[in-house]
Amino acid sequence: MYDFLNDYNQTVHPNLLKEFVDINNKKLSGYGLDECCDDAINSIKKLLKSPNADIHFMAGGTITNLTTISHILKPYQAVIAAETGHINVHETGAIEATGHKVVTVKTEDGKLTPELIKPVLDYHCDEHMVQPKLVYISNTTELGTLYTKQELKKLYQFCQKHHLYLYLDGARLAMALAAKDNDITFPDLAKYTDAFYIGGTKVGAFAGEALIFNNLSINHDFRFNMKQKGAILAKSWIIAVQFKALMENNLYISLGKHSNDMAEKLKNLFENEGLTFAAKPQSNQLFVNFPNQLAKKIISLYALDNLGQTDPSHICLRFCTSWATQEVEIENFAKQLKALLRK
Amino acid sequence: MYDFLNDYNQTVHPNLLKEFVDINNKKLSGYGLDECCDDAINSIKKLLKSPNADIHFMAGGTITNLTTISHILKPYQAVIAAETGHINVHETGAIEATGHKVVTVKTEDGKLTPELIKPVLDYHCDEHMVQPKLVYISNTTELGTLYTKQELKKLYQFCQKHHLYLYLDGARLAMALAAKDNDITFPDLAKYTDAFYIGGTKVGAFAGEALIFNNLSINHDFRFNMKQKGAILAKSWIIAVQFKALMENNLYISLGKHSNDMAEKLKNLFENEGLTFAAKPQSNQLFVNFPNQLAKKIISLYALDNLGQTDPSHICLRFCTSWATQEVEIENFAKQLKALLRK
Amino acid sequence: MYDFLNDYNQTVHPNLLKEFVDINNKKLSGYGLDECCDDAINSIKKLLKSPNADIHFMAGGTITNLTTISHILKPYQAVIAAETGHINVHETGAIEATGHKVVTVKTEDGKLTPELIKPVLDYHCDEHMVQPKLVYISNTTELGTLYTKQELKKLYQFCQKHHLYLYLDGARLAMALAAKDNDITFPDLAKYTDAFYIGGTKVGAFAGEALIFNNLSINHDFRFNMKQKGAILAKSWIIAVQFKALMENNLYISLGKHSNDMAEKLKNLFENEGLTFAAKPQSNQLFVNFPNQLAKKIISLYALDNLGQTDPSHICLRFCTSWATQEVEIENFAKQLKALLRK
Amino acid sequence: MYDFLNDYNQTVHPNLLKEFVDINNKKLSGYGLDECCDDAINSIKKLLKSPNADIHFMAGGTITNLTTISHILKPYQAVIAAETGHINVHETGAIEATGHKVVTVKTEDGKLTPELIKPVLDYHCDEHMVQPKLVYISNTTELGTLYTKQELKKLYQFCQKHHLYLYLDGARLAMALAAKDNDITFPDLAKYTDAFYIGGTKVGAFAGEALIFNNLSINHDFRFNMKQKGAILAKSWIIAVQFKALMENNLYISLGKHSNDMAEKLKNLFENEGLTFAAKPQSNQLFVNFPNQLAKKIISLYALDNLGQTDPSHICLRFCTSWATQEVEIENFAKQLKALLRK
Repeated sequence: MYDFLNDYNQTVHPNLLKEFVDINNKKLSGYGLDECCDDAINSIKKLLKSPNADIHFMAGGTITNLTTISHILKPYQAVIAAETGHINVHETGAIEATGHKVVTVKTEDGKLTPELIKPVLDYHCDEHMVQPKLVYISNTTELGTLYTKQELKKLYQFCQKHHLYLYLDGARLAMALAAKDNDITFPDLAKYTDAFYIGGTKVGAFAGEALIFNNLSINHDFRFNMKQKGAILAKSWIIAVQFKALMENNLYISLGKHSNDMAEKLKNLFENEGLTFAAKPQSNQLFVNFPNQLAKKIISLYALDNLGQTDPSHICLRFCTSWATQEVEIENFAKQLKALLRK
Repeated sequence: MYDFLNDYNQTVHPNLLKEFVDINNKKLSGYGLDECCDDAINSIKKLLKSPNADIHFMAGGTITNLTTISHILKPYQAVIAAETGHINVHETGAIEATGHKVVTVKTEDGKLTPELIKPVLDYHCDEHMVQPKLVYISNTTELGTLYTKQELKKLYQFCQKHHLYLYLDGARLAMALAAKDNDITFPDLAKYTDAFYIGGTKVGAFAGEALIFNNLSINHDFRFNMKQKGAILAKSWIIAVQFKALMENNLYISLGKHSNDMAEKLKNLFENEGLTFAAKPQSNQLFVNFPNQLAKKIISLYALDNLGQTDPSHICLRFCTSWATQEVEIENFAKQLKALLRK
Repeated sequence: MYDFLNDYNQTVHPNLLKEFVDINNKKLSGYGLDECCDDAINSIKKLLKSPNADIHFMAGGTITNLTTISHILKPYQAVIAAETGHINVHETGAIEATGHKVVTVKTEDGKLTPELIKPVLDYHCDEHMVQPKLVYISNTTELGTLYTKQELKKLYQFCQKHHLYLYLDGARLAMALAAKDNDITFPDLAKYTDAFYIGGTKVGAFAGEALIFNNLSINHDFRFNMKQKGAILAKSWIIAVQFKALMENNLYISLGKHSNDMAEKLKNLFENEGLTFAAKPQSNQLFVNFPNQLAKKIISLYALDNLGQTDPSHICLRFCTSWATQEVEIENFAKQLKALLRK
Repeated sequence: MYDFLNDYNQTVHPNLLKEFVDINNKKLSGYGLDECCDDAINSIKKLLKSPNADIHFMAGGTITNLTTISHILKPYQAVIAAETGHINVHETGAIEATGHKVVTVKTEDGKLTPELIKPVLDYHCDEHMVQPKLVYISNTTELGTLYTKQELKKLYQFCQKHHLYLYLDGARLAMALAAKDNDITFPDLAKYTDAFYIGGTKVGAFAGEALIFNNLSINHDFRFNMKQKGAILAKSWIIAVQFKALMENNLYISLGKHSNDMAEKLKNLFENEGLTFAAKPQSNQLFVNFPNQLAKKIISLYALDNLGQTDPSHICLRFCTSWATQEVEIENFAKQLKALLRK
């Protein structure tokens, strides 16, 4: 029933579980200042080819976003996001609760570009308006789409030129980096963003995101802000050991690839049946337009995100696969779909 | 080296680890709305004899405190706490960051009483001052002391009479309920507080606190505030299963008792050596006054909280035992102490 | 040069100045608790035919909006506004700085309707999103347009039905109530909003707005929030006496009417010259589309708000008249415009 | 009845009223960017001998304090104040509402010293606690006491050394600078503080404070924060013209001196009658200990701030004189006091 509901409906990948069990008899210092955190941080730095990166572990996407963004901005500064951005829609005003406006931009595909941002800068001309200072993007986006390396680079250069910071929400970074159309690497992320986070919760961790500051002019005293926002776990090593495992032997990318592969099977299935997509299918999230009746039948059988009517005769449902999705789940669904269609 | 530093330097009690491993193949709905959360909530309700309690799981004490307190108070209202209260000292202004003043009261033993609170209410007389509306207490307190049932009841009745809410921080509730001098039960907590939390992080959980609202006039829409503060884990069941284990077969109280028992051995040791305490030793935290030279030797051997000079010739060190402290650690320390004293 | 820049470029109407001078030798209690405030409050109550209204004086629109909105909303609740709403555009994120999201709706004319709001309510379905609770409208709107009584009533009934509060920003309420197309009265405002403010700063006061709570379930302890936000003047009577004068002999409406009348002369002038408007000209603000060259000439002669290109060949300039605009200023401008056009 | 209640119970000094009347026919640009503001700023700069000072006008003390302090501090930073400091007691948590803790220090006389602040710095040692960054003092203090030049200089040097900023609340700066015991000049304030404000509301203005940034590394984009907090008046020139008048011909200091002189007469009266003071009488506020019965009689005749029991047999009442206090008021009170004493 929860098969395609989301990518966080199973606890933890076996490799991560093993680390979690192994760490259990160790005595460690608290609040992120232990040797396991150091190890995991070093693994990430190596992957990023960025020995000076400043790295912190937190337990979820919303708290990572709110802690980071509230740290970077001054009271009167705002963050620019796509209208579909997670911070704008699905974090219950977490950014505003720290005092900052989210200035939104309408997009076709959930992606920001210099062309979309420039008018926002032009519009915000004086002290009667907030001062946009940070650009928030997600990769993959909330619509499952991807940035190319060229797009990311151009966006970062635009931000540099206009004294904006660029922050990338990597809740589904594994799926982005593992996507067929992707040409971005970990070191690119270190080079072309001021800060970003590597998402663990949706990639086989029981909880955990790794925040990376590449720009060391914006992270001063960050642990103070983390503690204030309740974002430092006493036993931070439980997140660290998971990241150590995720970074080993390309596991992180492999899990992203598996998620995407399972989605591609669904995508082929849907295309074969002549169904269309509300957003370009590039990763593990598919936004599929079903005829109303069919949609209703499907959601009577599966728990799925329902995005409402695309047009009067179609309803859009999200299919989300994960590191734990099994081929047999796809096959079972395929049979069911075909049965529904042949009725 | 970290033997007596704190009560959260080891990951997780075996019973909890077992639950964590067992849950791993289940598919569950996200954000606290799954059957494991329901189960754990029911276990807690049973223990509290409070079928209508409203219960939520969060990952740490600071985020539990800030989410709860910011939910209960209106913008101009304040929380009253002992000067030593965790929210006043060790949460980096987390409460103030949500907009609320912490009004402090000087205490001898870290405990609030009607007599101490009454002058605060008298002083805050009009709209030029904040409006005290919530009383924050900890049990055990930050000094390791305990409330008796009679003290708690009187405090609650005082709060009721003066239209104040009473919130109890139970980071070390296990140690409080398991203490020799304790006469408070779980149902008493349901009866004599408006809200409280059962701490897991310091009692063998890898992370997790269970917040309980007894007063159902102050918890409306609480999940909105939780989400906004980044306090809902996607996989909340990982906290829930730990609480299920902690509530079974009296495990929670047993772990508290073990922590206290280990501390009592230390206490006896210190008393036999003629050392004094900066606060009455009642639970798993001992605040011991050492002659300066001895203190310095000890902290060269053990990582310990150093609370500074009690007087010009004494330094106060905190000894904190836990569910995982082993008797041999006490014995080894005893030998070391005796050796240092005999030198 | 500042002739049509805005409606707050001259200090104070003579009747108000007289009151200000007369009050000068009186000794009065501070912070809004004096007899002058009582008098002015009573004048307003009479006008509203609302003896129970709760009325407060503040020094400007932004501080009135932020204090009122932050008082009404719980932390996770949001205010719905037109995309053009003053709180969304021109208050530097003042509402967000108090922790609340402004959820925006695209409109044609700056006016909200049940039809525009309903989809916002449908969209915000659970605790992962903010909870819209307050509807913010302005009359006249930021585009100079008006609500009819029927529109206001329907909006209020919609809000009632959906448990939303309705708040009206009356920075230019005088111009609204004095407009040709208006059929709303002061008592209608008391009946069909939960709260609103009567703007003084743009209607001949040197500073001052009168906030009215009609719904007495949302104003509890409001003075605490006012004091906290720095919104209570020590000598509040200086605002009160101005409102007393404004409410006497229909002065408030007369000043609004004069502002509108002057704008109508400009409107006729523009229409005669074949110019078009970016928003329906209904009050003292005209948004006029000028051919690029002409626009540039005009702004070299007059300080005017420039709203940018309406289309590649037209620039939109705002003409704003006030209680102090003199007919000769219109005539002089008319001559100048004609000269420019005939060149 | 309001004779000695406070120093803001009469509207405006005649010289200021004249300016206010004179400005009335001018057309000016809004929001503090007009020539009157420029003039007043230049007058103040001259007085301070500080051509680079950055100066802003606001309408009251609380909004000046909250806007300034929230601008200077980062989210996790705190302001140090005397326990009696206005921001700690009488601003309804305005500073906390912007997210910052006020760390308090117990004092004898309302004055901070390096010796009092040093332990606060030592105590706040890591990211589990707020980071004290700003020192808030008032001159005169809330107890009517004064800083000497030597005290101010030492405090500033201490702040410099410890990377703290020093901000002085000058609500009653006129009384401080005009006091018999004073040796501080305006240029000293420019030299020995990072920011301070010259209070107008309590020195004959109908409203208005002039904030001065001496340290130009902390004022960047300050007008954005002002606008956000609702602190910029549309017609800011109404405050500016008052400051121009106050700065002319030493009027500001003269008004302070008159306030103090009137208080000194009261002080002599009280001393002659053998009464004692709860704080050293140095300016226009006297905190007088009256025998209970006498106190009750006095407050039945005069509106006065009642500070409660100093000891079981004495009540402390505040006598506050102002620029507008007349000698005859002192004489009348003297007669009344003597009559009460002789009864």
